[in-house]
Formats: sequence, C-alpha cells, structure tokens
Amino acid sequence: MTQQLLPQGFRAAGLHCGVKANHDIFDLSLFVSDGPASTAGVFTQNKVCGAPVKVCRQRVPRGTTRAVVINSGNSNACTGDRGIEDAKWMTAEVAALIGCEADDVLVCSTGVIGRFLPKEALASGFPRVVAQLSPDSQSFLNAARGIMTTDTVPKQATREVQINGRPVRVSGTAKGAAMIGPNMATMLCVIMTDATLSPADCDEMLRHAVNRSFNCISVEGHTSTSDSAILLANGRANAGFPTGDARAILQGAIDAVAMDLAMAIIRDAEGADHFVTIDVVGTRTRDEAFKIAKEIADSALVKTAITGADPNWGRIISAAGYAGVEFREEDMSLWINEIPIYKDGAPITCDLKALSQSIRTNRDVSVRLVFTLGEASVRYWTSDLTAEYVRLNADYTT
Amino acid sequence: MTQQLLPQGFRAAGLHCGVKANHDIFDLSLFVSDGPASTAGVFTQNKVCGAPVKVCRQRVPRGTTRAVVINSGNSNACTGDRGIEDAKWMTAEVAALIGCEADDVLVCSTGVIGRFLPKEALASGFPRVVAQLSPDSQSFLNAARGIMTTDTVPKQATREVQINGRPVRVSGTAKGAAMIGPNMATMLCVIMTDATLSPADCDEMLRHAVNRSFNCISVEGHTSTSDSAILLANGRANAGFPTGDARAILQGAIDAVAMDLAMAIIRDAEGADHFVTIDVVGTRTRDEAFKIAKEIADSALVKTAITGADPNWGRIISAAGYAGVEFREEDMSLWINEIPIYKDGAPITCDLKALSQSIRTNRDVSVRLVFTLGEASVRYWTSDLTAEYVRLNADYTT
Repeated sequence: MTQQLLPQGFRAAGLHCGVKANHDIFDLSLFVSDGPASTAGVFTQNKVCGAPVKVCRQRVPRGTTRAVVINSGNSNACTGDRGIEDAKWMTAEVAALIGCEADDVLVCSTGVIGRFLPKEALASGFPRVVAQLSPDSQSFLNAARGIMTTDTVPKQATREVQINGRPVRVSGTAKGAAMIGPNMATMLCVIMTDATLSPADCDEMLRHAVNRSFNCISVEGHTSTSDSAILLANGRANAGFPTGDARAILQGAIDAVAMDLAMAIIRDAEGADHFVTIDVVGTRTRDEAFKIAKEIADSALVKTAITGADPNWGRIISAAGYAGVEFREEDMSLWINEIPIYKDGAPITCDLKALSQSIRTNRDVSVRLVFTLGEASVRYWTSDLTAEYVRLNADYTT
Repeated sequence: MTQQLLPQGFRAAGLHCGVKANHDIFDLSLFVSDGPASTAGVFTQNKVCGAPVKVCRQRVPRGTTRAVVINSGNSNACTGDRGIEDAKWMTAEVAALIGCEADDVLVCSTGVIGRFLPKEALASGFPRVVAQLSPDSQSFLNAARGIMTTDTVPKQATREVQINGRPVRVSGTAKGAAMIGPNMATMLCVIMTDATLSPADCDEMLRHAVNRSFNCISVEGHTSTSDSAILLANGRANAGFPTGDARAILQGAIDAVAMDLAMAIIRDAEGADHFVTIDVVGTRTRDEAFKIAKEIADSALVKTAITGADPNWGRIISAAGYAGVEFREEDMSLWINEIPIYKDGAPITCDLKALSQSIRTNRDVSVRLVFTLGEASVRYWTSDLTAEYVRLNADYTT
C-alpha cells in the first residue's frame, strides 16, 4: 500500500491500550483537527444502536468538532445508561488532554456487543495516544489499524484536488469485514479534508458520498448497531468555500475516497473468494436499480453460485424478480464478466465453460443487468459466500 | 412416516418418466379429482415466473379443476412462448387421457431454470401415470416423491375433522429444500379436501393457511420463480358447506396441513443442522412481528451463530433493529430455548455454557422475542446456515 497522508491541520495516532487481549493488536485511535472542523455524520438506521452513536447524534448538529476517538474490541452497544456515561467519559478524557470541550469530541466504538467498556485500559491509553498524535503517514496508518476488528488489512484512501487554485486533500479510513448491510452509513469511517466547508455543506457532501459508497455494499446484509461515517473539514488548505465546478471537484474527491474505502471493505469481506461488482442500468429510477442490485447482492444462492464459479443467470434474474420492481422478463439482459448470457428475456448461447473458468480464475466478477425501462443506474459491490465465511461466523470464540 | 391417505374422490400417482437422468428418481406426478373440484391457487410474486405459473394464473379463476400434473427436474421457467406452449401441451395430454378439457388441468414444474421441457420423456410418462392413478396411500406417497428436487424426504400431511357430522379429510403434499423465501406461496404444494367449498371459499381459506405457513418460512430468502400452492375441494365427503364453527374447524385443518408441510420443508432445508422456530410476540400488528421475524430468519449472522451453538443475542436483537419497525431497546426481551437472556433492553445473567450446550445437542432451537408494544404475534420457521449449505449451492453440477 502506498503511504497515505492526512490533510493539513489533522493529526492522528493509534495504539494498543488493552481493550483487546492481544498486545500486538491496536484497539485505540484518535483523529484530531488543530482547530474546529465543520462536521457531518450519518449513522446506523438500526433501532438498536451503540451508545457512541447516540452521543454522536446529539453532538454532530453543533456543527464543528475537534476530534474523533475510536476504540475497537468493544462496541459499547446494548449497555444502557452506563454505556452512554462511558462514551461521554471517553470524550471528556480526550478533551481534557487536547484542550477542548467534551462536546467537541465525537466517539465511536466497534466490537463485541453487550459488554461494558474496560475503562482502566482506556484510561491508560488516552495520554499515550494523545502523546503520539502526529500528521505523518505512519500515525495515520496506526490510527487506521486501531479501528480494525476482523479486518485483515487497514483501509485508507486519499485524493488531492485543486480548489480555487489551492491544493486540497481528502483522506479517510474505514473498518469493516462483516455485519455489513446497506441502508445506512455502513461501519466506521472517518473522512478528513482541509477544504473549507460549512457544516451544512459537509452534511450534503457526506450524504452524497455515502449513498454511492457505503450504502452500496453488502457482505450479508446485516445492518450493524454501530455504523458511523463522519466527515471533518477544517479549512486549513485556505482554499475558500468551493462553488460551482470547484464544489463538484471536491464532491468527486469525497465520493472517490468513500468508494475506495467501501470497496476495500468488500475486498476484505470475511471468508470471501470473490469481489463482485453489480451494475444495474436502464431502470426508471436509481431506487429501482438499487433495490434490484441489493437483492442480487444479498442472495445466498447468487453468492454461492459465484463461489462455485457457476455463471448461474437463473439465480441472478430470479433475485431481480423479487426486488419489488415492476418489469417484464423481456425488459432484461444480463452480462457476466462482460459475456452476454441472457438477452431480452431468454438465455443465449455462450461458452459456459470458458465463462465458468473466468470466474474461477479471477477474484473480480462483474454482473451487469441491463433493463430497457429508463436511464437510471446503480453500482453495487458484494462478496461471495464461502464455507470459510460460515466457519468464521459459527466457530468463533466468544 | 405414517401412511397418509387422500381425501375421498381423489387419486394420485407418481413415477420416473425421464426428465431426470437417474431412473430411480421419480419426476412426474398426477393428482386427479373424480369430479370437478373447487380450486384456489396462490403463486410466486417473482416478476420472473415459470410458464406453468402463467398458465395456472389464467385457469384458476375458472373456479374448478379436475387435475394437477407436476414434473420435477425442469422448471420450464425462462423458456418464453415455447415454455407456455409446452405447459399447455402437458395439460392437454393429461386431459385427453382422463377425459376432460385442457383448461380443467393445472400444471406445475420445478427444477432447473431456462431449459425446454423434454417432451418425449413426458409423453411416454403420461399414459403410464394415468394408468397408475389410485386412491391408496402408496400412490399418494409416489406422487409426493415425484415432485421432489433436492428434498431428501417426501412431504405429506393429513388432518381429519368432523364437518356437519360427517368426516372430512384434508391432505397435502409439498416440495422444497432451497430457494425458499417468504412473500409468496412458497414452493409447490397441493392440498386436497373432500369438503364442500365454493371457489371463493377455497381462495379465502388457502390464503389464510399460506399466510401462516409457507409465507412464514425461509431457508435463504430467495423467492423462487415457480412457487405455487393449490387447494382442491371436491365435496365428496358430502358434508355440505361449512359455516360458523364448522368453517373454523375446517380452516384449522387446512392451516395445520399447510403448517406441517411448511415445517417439513424447513426440516429438510439444504445442509441445515438446526430447525429454528422464531416467535415474535407483543407487537402492534402482525405485520410488524412478521417483518422482525423475517429479518432474524434471513440474517446469515444469526443463522451461523446457531450453527456454532452460540446464544448470540446481539445478532438477534440487532437484526430486529433493522426490520423497519419502530421500537425502543427497552421494549424488548429475548428467550433462547426458553432461557431468558435479554430483558427490557439489557442482557441478563444466565448460564451461557449450558444454553450453548442445549443448542449444540438439540436439532430444534426456539427464539422468542417479546415486545411490550401490543398484542400481535407471528411464528416463523427457518434453518441455520452451514458450510454444507454453501457446498451444496456452490459445488453442484449444472
């Protein structure tokens, strides 16, 4: 992986403090803006949500933030009033160390559900993680590591664009390898930029990006209790408020960072052998395309067919058929790995053996379902379903 | 399995005709009423549906039927106009042999999608299956076998009740072990009764039963293209039209037969180690309970936890949380195998090792999620998700 840089005026750190038993695995991360950063956040739509989500939901509307503290290994979810107190305590401890109000600090936790946070371990970690804060790429990488749970690789993404003649950077990190489902801001993600944005702009641009990235991925469709995506913009690039083309360019950079991170989550999906890109095009609305893509992505039968390198068009089109979208079979054509296999409602002759071989030998699989209903489309990413996924999720130790 | 009897005035048969390669496996079944039987049918809501479903949808509104012919091994789905012609041809051949109009015969096909029916094999089978028609239990069993695909056991159910002082029988058979999802009349099912019912009554009573049975099961939530449930009532018990209590008794018998068959489908779910009964009670409406039960049943994380004998309440309540039903965590309590594990929004102390052991050593698992929101409830059945399921659906031969 190439070295990833933070935007100007951001520092980060990550380390092991003892939430997790294994001393070699990081479990605490901190992201700090040197001054107040305009802030937006989108959070899980699960009715059962972690205490940190509840605290963030209260604080994001304030508009600006100084820091985001994140622990992994314990989600602080389903922990009642004590969980809320513990989440607020985390922010107060960090605030005291970096010199701001507790309300200026956001908090995320990810890991096991239903256990109280180990406060002693965290208390020992806060001064150390603050002492290690740095703008360098190693610190950003450490922070990306500190938010991992079953992830096998840290996930970072960066884009640099010119806004009003000044270089602006957008950098983000995310975690997630399971309990990944759409209809939310999936999993933990922090995106930072030194662009100048109002909180309202932050919110609009974050939602735009999330709708094209984290809301378009699925491992098994299980919406987590702790999903959070946060955007911080501290203006340190001194590029002024972006408008017109400059705004579109910045939005493109934020979208690209979010998409990179979303795809990285799917590439790291638990037990997966294949990375599947599903394009649904030619529907009346984006929502129609989204519903169809989601049903295909969530179908265990489609996923296992891909695991078995079978170009099983019947499973794909029948999943499309129960997405709740009105269409006729004749409206639909299907390509797998760019090979046409079903056209205008009927299967067509193709070299199924060669197509199966192309699935077997390539990690990336493309599914392209084309309708004749309109101009809308969506791109969606998912993983296959392997015996290893079942093993990971059945035979884990609690 | 105890011997199952047909209702009076029904005959059945099943045999191998050559749709499937293996000569030892049945692939053609026929159910015949000696006279016109009032008929109802509910069919898949998939926009992609088999040709037999299209033919049945045209014919069921006629109100009465003489016979249902079913082949397994080929679903005659995604076969275009030729598929429709082939399905009608099947009914015409059978009609000529039993002496009725083609319109009086319904047809179902189940198996591989996208291949044309082997008409020669079927043509050779029709005279033989008609010749073997009989009211005895062995013939009913043969017919139950002829509709099987990946099922490992034939599925039959019977109830006898007294209607207006006369004995009335309700008997049914169903098939299905995968591509089982709700929101439909799941898989193939034929229920026969010698009760006297109008077509409108048949329709009302079949929908009542299906909503409490086939629509409350899920293996992997993939709605099939060929799902059909058909009820035939030929009046041969001479019990008159049931009203009041008698109607409730008959409805209970039809419900019980449908539930027996639905549960048999889940007990035979591909690769499953556990049979899971999910009770969601105390919601404002049945629809709320249904949505929550369905999300729990369809969650790969819940299923794999049960595979691993882990009483993972976090996965269960978080699945409930994304069902789109408004509730607070405090409204919710959870029992697994009758052991309370989560109460009023917080986990409670219990012997997790003993509970895990009870899951590991029993095929049946009960999940009971109790809300304080109202009086509605639903019972839902599902299977766990095993590496064997993945193997069956990834490494099959096409």
